[in-house]
Amino acid sequence: MYVIAVYDVSVDRVNKVKKFLRMHLTWVQNSVLEGEVTESQLMKIKKGLLELIHSDTDSVRLYILSSDKLLRKEILGISKGDSEDNVF
Amino acid sequence: MYVIAVYDVSVDRVNKVKKFLRMHLTWVQNSVLEGEVTESQLMKIKKGLLELIHSDTDSVRLYILSSDKLLRKEILGISKGDSEDNVF
Repeated sequence: MYVIAVYDVSVDRVNKVKKFLRMHLTWVQNSVLEGEVTESQLMKIKKGLLELIHSDTDSVRLYILSSDKLLRKEILGISKGDSEDNVF
Repeated sequence: MYVIAVYDVSVDRVNKVKKFLRMHLTWVQNSVLEGEVTESQLMKIKKGLLELIHSDTDSVRLYILSSDKLLRKEILGISKGDSEDNVF
């Protein structure tokens, strides 16, 4: 399956969250990572995030699709990551 | 179609970009908006963004799907917007 993760966490935890997510996903833009994962990896990602973040102040959105073929990506401006389809 | 927009733009332009995107999409988290749009609205969004951002430094990622039914959303931590499916 394909996962897009967008985090909004306190500055105290941002590096830890970023480092953890980079173990599983590809960084593509500030606070955004994405990648192909198995169901088991997704469970690890969720478990790890729940251990790292403070649930009363931090937020991580996960968008989960069965395949990235269902998704069209368009990037306006500079391409900060390396998995883009289109750059304008 | 369903669009998720994630922006990373200079602080000088962040309010303008946010305000513009809110005219078309729903704010759900810091720098993230999403919503159902027509092809014509999507063209307006892209055109408007290209007028607002500086293409050499700013970046806006658009994830476009034919329907939000293809997408599962999970939110870890607090839910900052109002269109979430699951809150842990």
